[in-house]
Amino acid sequence: MSHGKQFTLYTHVGGPNGWKVAFVLEELGLTYESKYLDFAKGEHKGPEHTKLNPNGRIPTLIDHQNNDFVIWESNAILLYLIEKHDKDNKLGVSNEADKYKLLQWLFFQASGQGPYFGQAFWFMRYHPEKLPSAIERYQKEAQRVYSVLESVLSKQEWLVGDKPTIADIAFITWNRSAFNVILKDVPGVDVEKDYPSVYKWHKKLEERPAVQKVLGEQAKLLANH
Amino acid sequence: MSHGKQFTLYTHVGGPNGWKVAFVLEELGLTYESKYLDFAKGEHKGPEHTKLNPNGRIPTLIDHQNNDFVIWESNAILLYLIEKHDKDNKLGVSNEADKYKLLQWLFFQASGQGPYFGQAFWFMRYHPEKLPSAIERYQKEAQRVYSVLESVLSKQEWLVGDKPTIADIAFITWNRSAFNVILKDVPGVDVEKDYPSVYKWHKKLEERPAVQKVLGEQAKLLANH
Repeated sequence: MSHGKQFTLYTHVGGPNGWKVAFVLEELGLTYESKYLDFAKGEHKGPEHTKLNPNGRIPTLIDHQNNDFVIWESNAILLYLIEKHDKDNKLGVSNEADKYKLLQWLFFQASGQGPYFGQAFWFMRYHPEKLPSAIERYQKEAQRVYSVLESVLSKQEWLVGDKPTIADIAFITWNRSAFNVILKDVPGVDVEKDYPSVYKWHKKLEERPAVQKVLGEQAKLLANH
Repeated sequence: MSHGKQFTLYTHVGGPNGWKVAFVLEELGLTYESKYLDFAKGEHKGPEHTKLNPNGRIPTLIDHQNNDFVIWESNAILLYLIEKHDKDNKLGVSNEADKYKLLQWLFFQASGQGPYFGQAFWFMRYHPEKLPSAIERYQKEAQRVYSVLESVLSKQEWLVGDKPTIADIAFITWNRSAFNVILKDVPGVDVEKDYPSVYKWHKKLEERPAVQKVLGEQAKLLANH
C-alpha cells in the first residue's frame, strides 16, 4: 500500500462496474487509489490482475486495512463495503427483512439489468456483424427491466426501505448507458415519459454529490483518453 | 399454507433457477410445496405471481414460518435459506472471509454463468432467426466461464472453503445445460477433457442424494410434460 490509501481499486475508464464501486467508496468517505487497466493491452487478463481475480474482469478491490483482503464481483464488493465500513448505515439497511430485499435487488441488477443492457450495447457497438434481431431482443429486454422497476418505483421512492441504498446505486451506470445509447433512438420509446418514476429515481441518484464527483473524474479521464 | 409445508416455491418444470432452490431445500431437509407455473399461459406474469414478484420470473419463495416472507432471485433465496435455516452450517460457511467469497461466487454465477449460458441456449433454441455469430459468441463465453472455473477448481476441490456450499450448488443446472446442449456439439470442444476439474466437480455435485432426488422428480415431470 505504497500509495497510503485504504483501498486499491482495479477498474477501467469506460466499463460500468468499476464506477459503481467508486460511487460507494466516495459516498462512504473512504480513501482509494484507482488502477485503470488497459483492456487493449490485455492488462485485465494479465498475471498481475488474474492472481487477484481469476475472472480477469474489473472491478477488483483490495482492502489494505484488512490484511490486503481481495474481493471481486462489483455487487459483492458493495456488500463488503457497507457491512465492514458503513457503521452509520448510510447506504445499508438495518432490519432483517430489508437485508434480504437488498440482496434480491442486487441480484436482479447483476442478472437482469447488467447482462441484458450489456448485450444490447455489445450488439449495437462491438459485434462484428450487424444483427438487427439481436439488437431488438436486448432493447426489448431493457424495456422489460424498466417496466419491472417502474412497477415498484411508482409506489415507493427507493428500492429498499425508505432511503437510498447500494441497491439503488448499483443501477446508475447501466441506466446512463440505457438513457444515452441503448434506448435513445428506439422508435416509440421515450424513457422519461414511459418510465417516469425510473427516470426521476435515476436523476436523484445522479445528483448526489459523491456520484457527481466520481462522474466528473470519469468525464475528465474520457476526455484525455 | 393450506398444504401444511413450510415453504411454497413458485417454479417451472424446465427452467434452471427453480431447481437450484429445490436442491437446497432438499439438502436442508426443509418441507416445501412446488407450484409449477405454466409459462405458455403466462402464469409467471399473471397477477397472482407478480403481486409476490414484480419481476414475473421464477423462482419465488414464501416462508410460511416467517410471516409468509416472500423472496425472489434464486441466489438471494439460497442466501436466505442458509442464513435462516441452516443452523448446522451444512451448506454455508463459518468465517468472515469465506462469507464474502461465497457472495463473490454467487454473483459470478448470477452475472457470468447464468446470463451467458442462457443466451447461448436462447440463440440455439428459441431465437426466431438463425444467427451463427451470436450462437458462437455465447458458446465462446461459456468456454471462458469454464476456463475461469478450471483455473480455480484445479487447485481446490470446492469454490469456497473446503466443503460444498450453495456457491457450488448454484452452478449445477446451467452446467447440465452446457454439458448436454450448449457445448455438446461444438467442434473441438470436449468438456470432460478440456475442463477436467470442472467436470469432476460437477459430477460430485450431481451425485449428492438430495440433488439426485430432485433431478429424479424433474425427469418424471418432464416425461409427463
